[in-house]
Amino acid sequence: MTEGQSGEGGVLSGIRVLEIGHFVAAPFCTRLLGDLGADIIKIEPPKGDPVRQWGAQIDGRSLWWSVHGRNKRSIALDLKAQEGRDILLDLVEHCDVVVENFRPGQLHKMGLAPDILRERRPGLIVAHVSGYGQSGPGRNQAAFGVIGEAIGGIRYLTNHPPETHGLPPVRVGVSIGDSLAGLYAAFGIVSALWRRDKFGATARFETIDVALTESVLSMMEGMLPEFGALGKIKQPTGGAIATAAPSNAYPTADEQWILIAANSEPLFAKLLALMGRSDLVDDPRFTGNAQRVSHAAELDSLIGDWSGQYTAERLSHMLAGADIPSSKVYTAQDIAHDPQYRARGMVREVEDPLIGTVLHPGIVPHFPDAPGQVRSTGPDIGADGEAIMRELLGYDKSRIVSLKHSGVLT
Amino acid sequence: MTEGQSGEGGVLSGIRVLEIGHFVAAPFCTRLLGDLGADIIKIEPPKGDPVRQWGAQIDGRSLWWSVHGRNKRSIALDLKAQEGRDILLDLVEHCDVVVENFRPGQLHKMGLAPDILRERRPGLIVAHVSGYGQSGPGRNQAAFGVIGEAIGGIRYLTNHPPETHGLPPVRVGVSIGDSLAGLYAAFGIVSALWRRDKFGATARFETIDVALTESVLSMMEGMLPEFGALGKIKQPTGGAIATAAPSNAYPTADEQWILIAANSEPLFAKLLALMGRSDLVDDPRFTGNAQRVSHAAELDSLIGDWSGQYTAERLSHMLAGADIPSSKVYTAQDIAHDPQYRARGMVREVEDPLIGTVLHPGIVPHFPDAPGQVRSTGPDIGADGEAIMRELLGYDKSRIVSLKHSGVLT
Repeated sequence: MTEGQSGEGGVLSGIRVLEIGHFVAAPFCTRLLGDLGADIIKIEPPKGDPVRQWGAQIDGRSLWWSVHGRNKRSIALDLKAQEGRDILLDLVEHCDVVVENFRPGQLHKMGLAPDILRERRPGLIVAHVSGYGQSGPGRNQAAFGVIGEAIGGIRYLTNHPPETHGLPPVRVGVSIGDSLAGLYAAFGIVSALWRRDKFGATARFETIDVALTESVLSMMEGMLPEFGALGKIKQPTGGAIATAAPSNAYPTADEQWILIAANSEPLFAKLLALMGRSDLVDDPRFTGNAQRVSHAAELDSLIGDWSGQYTAERLSHMLAGADIPSSKVYTAQDIAHDPQYRARGMVREVEDPLIGTVLHPGIVPHFPDAPGQVRSTGPDIGADGEAIMRELLGYDKSRIVSLKHSGVLT
Repeated sequence: MTEGQSGEGGVLSGIRVLEIGHFVAAPFCTRLLGDLGADIIKIEPPKGDPVRQWGAQIDGRSLWWSVHGRNKRSIALDLKAQEGRDILLDLVEHCDVVVENFRPGQLHKMGLAPDILRERRPGLIVAHVSGYGQSGPGRNQAAFGVIGEAIGGIRYLTNHPPETHGLPPVRVGVSIGDSLAGLYAAFGIVSALWRRDKFGATARFETIDVALTESVLSMMEGMLPEFGALGKIKQPTGGAIATAAPSNAYPTADEQWILIAANSEPLFAKLLALMGRSDLVDDPRFTGNAQRVSHAAELDSLIGDWSGQYTAERLSHMLAGADIPSSKVYTAQDIAHDPQYRARGMVREVEDPLIGTVLHPGIVPHFPDAPGQVRSTGPDIGADGEAIMRELLGYDKSRIVSLKHSGVLT
């Protein structure tokens, strides 16, 4: 039985993916595929993916990289050299999928256009991830993540109501647009693999073109149809929800935030009782959800004055005791210590041979009967080049030495 | 050739999915599968999915539903009746996948546990979507989306720096946690289908357990490893980025926001020139990215004073002319009129027979050689019950009449 057949390494074991990516979107896509068991070969420039320099480091090694590069093997290749590109084409013969996130057209300029790749591997699935997509008049605009998120509509909605404060809309604290594009690409790739292996290769289903902007817009619910039909421009609502109250983050005495969602009649009554304000049950401002939404600011201010008298810990107990949906707004620390995450392996210690013990998020989606594992942590630049050349390409020692000597392989 | 073989309806045509879902997460999962061509049968309670009441309506019909329910067929079944559950089991025989988002254990209580479903359809893939997952001590907590997002870590990071304003952290303006869980579930489902059809059914890869909290945490980049190794608690940065400046949303004279990402030496110099402040190029506060990050508030205030003198339209032209990455912070209106979205079909008019012309987002991921289409818009409650009973189950007219009479089928 091959490793692929047994599924030992996860549901996608047996699939091999070549990543010619950098930063977040394409590498996040391959992290997801690798987490489910695919064999990921990452091509890096001799100095490595710039994302290795991002975020906090230990001895010059990025902690994020331990996660972002996990379940991948790295080859550092100089693609400016013809010999580097030749090696890449040799590798493509052994792969099911190529994922890339250069600017549109760049692969073509490098002599690595999809039709050239497919000469070496007919039926190759090629996933392009970019800011705005591979076609259209705007495809060549600079694809900064934050700008793509703004164009996708998420930035405008992530804000306090503009009339209440003059503050700029908030960035979701991570590169959400890049990661969404990576996740959509992974979904598209597996869909294309299903079709290829079920019905045979068809050129129509071999190319996937994922735009960061479109990945974000795809999540925007009723925003677009409501504008189209009614001219309604969806507005930001701060910590609240436009259609239900009370639901917000409220301050605590120890300068944390607690989420309270008491937006139904029985929950609201329970909350008022807990606050010692059952007199407000019949207050016309707060009778029924529609009234509460209209007076949400007053209501939030009342709840905030109350919550601010207690620590987050105390409030959590009080609210849980009263059976009111609530939670501290979790920080990294809260997440690291959460028993539910620990019980499910969603927060786990992983040994990284380059750094030591590193706290990793688990694998999503979770297959409870075959949960898979973090088989390896983010590798050093080019750590696997020699092994892959021998194993997949059958290059001998002298050829590898010569490639290293000329700087094509690092 | 079957419809599945031709791939006429999209890359996933040939797959049939039964959704026993409600609200956002499971229905978003099936929207994604349906967008790629899968046949989606949605089981609804006689009064319909409550999400049909959400958001703006036309003649009592939700505009969001036109999108959320697209490419699906609806059967309204009373699952409290044994006969309703029997019909569901008959349907399961004809499906590849079941997606559900009840509270953990609820399916079991209804007599629809996965092993019962699999008696009728061996190898059935079952995807469970829930707030906290199907296992662990916290699995039964109330699964409100906003609370799951807070526990996943995204809420804390989506805020202005707490020390600068006392405002609560902001909700991403959509149910991002639910949608992420739906997208992860879709990715897992297709992965399981690939394995089933490549290597044959294996019980190990038939169950998928997606938690909203975990789907969010999975996107949190270096947050968890940096806390684990260094005790560093990742902090919110408002409109800015922690590691690069200037990059923020700046006010305009017409009360809009413009995103400017001038966070490199040449881009920053260009921006200063455009502002008529080239004298600041050598200001020690702004020399090099590290210095600019340290003085980001001063810098943002300078840029904001400048941007506030011009309209968003004028600024866009000026910044584009100077080749500085920027964009208006798009509202629904900007998105609806954007030529790039229109050119790629990402914003498109769709005829909804129940409402009229509705503006829909396109299909993501995009397969340029087989782009698929919106085959149908969100159907009326139970619109397809009779047709599906005849087509898949071979029920005759009298049986259907009797089911309607007894209220089992609406």
